[in-house]
Amino acid sequence: MTVRRVSAYKWVPPFAQGLVRDLRVRWALEEAGFAYEVDAIAHPDRLAPDYVAKQPFAQVPVYEEDDLVLFESGAIVLHLARQSTMLMPSDPTEQAHVTMWIFAALNSIEPCISVLAELDLFHAEQNWAREQRPLAEETVKARLQQLADALADRDYLLKQFSAADLMLVSVLRILRHTNILAGFSTLTAYQNRVESRPAFKRALEAQMNTFAAYEP
Amino acid sequence: MTVRRVSAYKWVPPFAQGLVRDLRVRWALEEAGFAYEVDAIAHPDRLAPDYVAKQPFAQVPVYEEDDLVLFESGAIVLHLARQSTMLMPSDPTEQAHVTMWIFAALNSIEPCISVLAELDLFHAEQNWAREQRPLAEETVKARLQQLADALADRDYLLKQFSAADLMLVSVLRILRHTNILAGFSTLTAYQNRVESRPAFKRALEAQMNTFAAYEP
Repeated sequence: MTVRRVSAYKWVPPFAQGLVRDLRVRWALEEAGFAYEVDAIAHPDRLAPDYVAKQPFAQVPVYEEDDLVLFESGAIVLHLARQSTMLMPSDPTEQAHVTMWIFAALNSIEPCISVLAELDLFHAEQNWAREQRPLAEETVKARLQQLADALADRDYLLKQFSAADLMLVSVLRILRHTNILAGFSTLTAYQNRVESRPAFKRALEAQMNTFAAYEP
Repeated sequence: MTVRRVSAYKWVPPFAQGLVRDLRVRWALEEAGFAYEVDAIAHPDRLAPDYVAKQPFAQVPVYEEDDLVLFESGAIVLHLARQSTMLMPSDPTEQAHVTMWIFAALNSIEPCISVLAELDLFHAEQNWAREQRPLAEETVKARLQQLADALADRDYLLKQFSAADLMLVSVLRILRHTNILAGFSTLTAYQNRVESRPAFKRALEAQMNTFAAYEP
């Protein structure tokens, strides 16, 4: 029996609840129907030598599957996708396309969204952040328009729901403190469609339950 | 006989030469010993509908392999790595580790480096960029220290050279307009080691030759 474990923070402030990246891995595990255990760590303990030995950038999640130890939520989700057709079809071309969109979510879309979120959540009082913000928002909107054009009238990025949608919606969620997505009806409908999946709801509830259990 | 094609810009300004992402794919192709053809496009033609149909974010590279069309250099390099033990061992655990470090390069390291590079290369005259720069540089240095600690005294990220090193060094190269890497002797030695590979030299020369052929 394979034992799967995911590291997660015991608690984070509300602005980060529902966004911390163990959610992406919990969601993939739920879609695949794989049971897992949670290693809840206090936020400062991400810097402990034992933890950094598993996650050199001192973040969550770490994923352990028997003797395999992985970090990077993109790599973990792709690893799980190779084990479940709920996350990725078995056809090699379709697998290449799922992989491509996971990378697109993390390298073509998330970076500009993260820039905007950091300005808003960590530096909103700084003059330089206020001055930079219009450009950062414009950059996000341009990228979202390209994404909406690519998605067009399809329900999912590929023929059926896959780990690519899981990752892309996980990235779009980072915009929740803004009303930017509301300007893209295609993407709003897409996000609602994907977030309505029972596996997502279970994953989100599980992350929130951990925070509730350790509420300071 | 598999036909492989990579899109590349006919010409870009010197600050981008040697960094454009088709280099990553050319390098992987060279390591694997796969012949390829180049589809050189003028920079404005990235916006042409035929091109955007292949690359929704209007960037290079697009990779075509017979009927398969892929974008995202991370996904393309991983796709090639699955075809060549020069890029990735055949052992599943080692493959998971190579994949993990490709994602780490693109999602945990490149974003903060790109923020710094954009400040320096596109916004250096803006007050907000000058005010933000110390924090952006500090963020890069903290991440590089974590990376140097993780690499420790090893020659490569994993037991032997792999696509993970190819991707990580491709990301570190974005810092070439700064002297930041010089503060990390482990990483400088690592970059020199990886860039000394004949396959890298051939790939870089090929990209530069395209620019020379179309010099305006």
